[in-house]
Amino acid sequence: MKTLKVGICGWGNVATGMFNAIESNNNYITKAGVDINIACIGARRDNPKCNPGATPIFRDIFDIPEQDIDVVVELIGGVEVARELILKSIRAGKHVITANKAVIFNHGDEIFAEANKNKVKVLFEAAVCAGTPIVKMLKEELAPNKIKKISGMLNGTSNFILSNMEEGNEFDDTLELAQKEGYAEPDPSFDIEGVDAAHKIGLLSSIAYGSSLPPKDFYIEGITKIDKKDFIYAEMLGYTIKHLAISEDNEDKIELRAHPALVSKKSYLANLKGVRNGIEVDTDLIGKIHIAGSGAGQESTASGLISDIIHLANSNEDILNVVSSINQKPIKDFGEFSFQYYFFIEAEDNPGVMASITTRLAEESIGIESMVQKDELGKNIVPIILITDIFKEDKLEGIKDKILSLDTIKNLRTIRIESTD
Amino acid sequence: MKTLKVGICGWGNVATGMFNAIESNNNYITKAGVDINIACIGARRDNPKCNPGATPIFRDIFDIPEQDIDVVVELIGGVEVARELILKSIRAGKHVITANKAVIFNHGDEIFAEANKNKVKVLFEAAVCAGTPIVKMLKEELAPNKIKKISGMLNGTSNFILSNMEEGNEFDDTLELAQKEGYAEPDPSFDIEGVDAAHKIGLLSSIAYGSSLPPKDFYIEGITKIDKKDFIYAEMLGYTIKHLAISEDNEDKIELRAHPALVSKKSYLANLKGVRNGIEVDTDLIGKIHIAGSGAGQESTASGLISDIIHLANSNEDILNVVSSINQKPIKDFGEFSFQYYFFIEAEDNPGVMASITTRLAEESIGIESMVQKDELGKNIVPIILITDIFKEDKLEGIKDKILSLDTIKNLRTIRIESTD
Repeated sequence: MKTLKVGICGWGNVATGMFNAIESNNNYITKAGVDINIACIGARRDNPKCNPGATPIFRDIFDIPEQDIDVVVELIGGVEVARELILKSIRAGKHVITANKAVIFNHGDEIFAEANKNKVKVLFEAAVCAGTPIVKMLKEELAPNKIKKISGMLNGTSNFILSNMEEGNEFDDTLELAQKEGYAEPDPSFDIEGVDAAHKIGLLSSIAYGSSLPPKDFYIEGITKIDKKDFIYAEMLGYTIKHLAISEDNEDKIELRAHPALVSKKSYLANLKGVRNGIEVDTDLIGKIHIAGSGAGQESTASGLISDIIHLANSNEDILNVVSSINQKPIKDFGEFSFQYYFFIEAEDNPGVMASITTRLAEESIGIESMVQKDELGKNIVPIILITDIFKEDKLEGIKDKILSLDTIKNLRTIRIESTD
Repeated sequence: MKTLKVGICGWGNVATGMFNAIESNNNYITKAGVDINIACIGARRDNPKCNPGATPIFRDIFDIPEQDIDVVVELIGGVEVARELILKSIRAGKHVITANKAVIFNHGDEIFAEANKNKVKVLFEAAVCAGTPIVKMLKEELAPNKIKKISGMLNGTSNFILSNMEEGNEFDDTLELAQKEGYAEPDPSFDIEGVDAAHKIGLLSSIAYGSSLPPKDFYIEGITKIDKKDFIYAEMLGYTIKHLAISEDNEDKIELRAHPALVSKKSYLANLKGVRNGIEVDTDLIGKIHIAGSGAGQESTASGLISDIIHLANSNEDILNVVSSINQKPIKDFGEFSFQYYFFIEAEDNPGVMASITTRLAEESIGIESMVQKDELGKNIVPIILITDIFKEDKLEGIKDKILSLDTIKNLRTIRIESTD
């Protein structure tokens, strides 16, 4: 049995959740070989929901790294102060465990380099999908494999909203429901604009491919432009719509992106509904691995944090952070990607309109896989749904402008199609 | 970087697969902090499919533990000779990694006790679902949790056959196809009789609940009595049929069993098709975790074995095997379980037959949730399908006998229903 003395910085929901779980599940934790001793807490104020008993609370979180502890658990959130706290802890020879994806995304390279210099570890299982184990799985269980592609629904709020829209509900109503159920923040922009998912795939890409933290800018789009009708048209064509975060190793570049996409209704990711997170990892030896579980929540996050403490106790002290790259490839420009696209077009209902659209596409050498014209909007306006052949992303905006410049076209939106098998 | 000197015992498909994967994926393995040095091989004969280069081959596998190595990878299969080899390796101070579920199932307690005495580790990730990571996940990533229930489709052959029967094919044709595709052995009895799945759930139960290895006898039933028509009737009632291996912690006993069951078509396990393995782990902190991937195959097994070597290099030498129990509860007798049951009855088509069946059930205080009579067999014989209310397993045989004793009843089979949510 190894004893680890832990200092917790931050005393909100996640911190108290961890504190309580260490108490309630102590027999499971000791079975895994670790005796966790919460030695001190850093928090500006008490939390009426949790009494830490005899554990001293320091009002200045920066006092915590100076205590006689083995590891600092950083749960203050935010980026710049968290970075300072983590760096101070590292320089004081403390291991660091964090659930803070934003600070690792933005300052990971600096933090891991400093940690390796000081021979301590920085662990962040809970930063990606809370307690659902994906970080350590990539680092160890899947380590013998070439990771070909990681595709995930990494934001529970987005998945909840899209799953509800698939059932016929409006975006706004569903967002409101998500807020009521506690699945979305009062300011939901990080979730619904794709930033949260982008942070998480940035971290996973760093583990799998050694891409830098922060990574070079990559394409991030949220779910706010999806209309509930898109689900109806997507379904007619055998698809549903998911918000995906993807990283892929191709020959000379790393692909990294987060955006909504049509995915085949038969695919694994299409069938993951609700607030859960789900990940598909395509490997060379095992093939495709699927893992799904809760991606947020006080208790699930506590599990991820405690599993890092257990890992710390069970792991070889000489093995440091292996996040930095062995093979730093550049990140592929988004314009270089190629997709099939879903086009939703509202057009005047006249005999020439289909010809005028297909002509514009043909001028750009873009073929059409399928085309459906629906008669339902009334007022002489019809929706036209296209699935294009594959073409390069950097042609997309030009093509949209060209179609929208036609007098008969009233509206146009596009969604990329993610190929699955 | 830590170097580990490895001796391989056995030189068949799995061993050569591991040998090749260590060579082909060496850059991924070294990125995880390990330099694997295959120091020697123990094999009665060469393998024409794999040339080990300068690595010496010993004709007596029992010479391997005597070499200057850190770890013996046991890949000879079988039980008794494997046990001897593992014990000799342990006593020679070598760590042991094995993909051999049968030897761990039958002699785990003895092997782990001996390993702890000799301060070495015995790892067996590849013994359950090949490279799909479930063993280490239970040991570490999920370790902070109370594991409430583990439900898995742990035998790829059975899952392949049942998925094909669901599509309308006969058992025999599907088994033949599975053999042709390499998913089933020439003698498939271990797979289709449920023994392979039972071995795997025994191992997982030992990790999660500390049940002994070998465990006390528990209920094991294979898929050979399932008829393709059962899928049609199950579907009418909202179910499909899967072969499940289940371990569950209830208040004072451990539940352990492997048998076919009707599961709701909406459940996670119902939607896993084909030869893959899939597991649902119900935990108190994270909630339900799902993981699915290949459960067999040369390369997938190699991944599991190599991940154990990586784990060995990265883990604290002082932490030994935590398989033995902290809280050894007895295994629940199968007769004490309660289920809803699916009854398939072939009866003479006369007006009194339904009444005679329901009367027999009523005499035993067994209620009926639904009852369907189909008219399709011709010759005055009709199939009657019942879903019963929950009753105790130890009443089942008596009830079957009672119904079968009716002159009008020609055939009766039952399948348990696994409740899911």
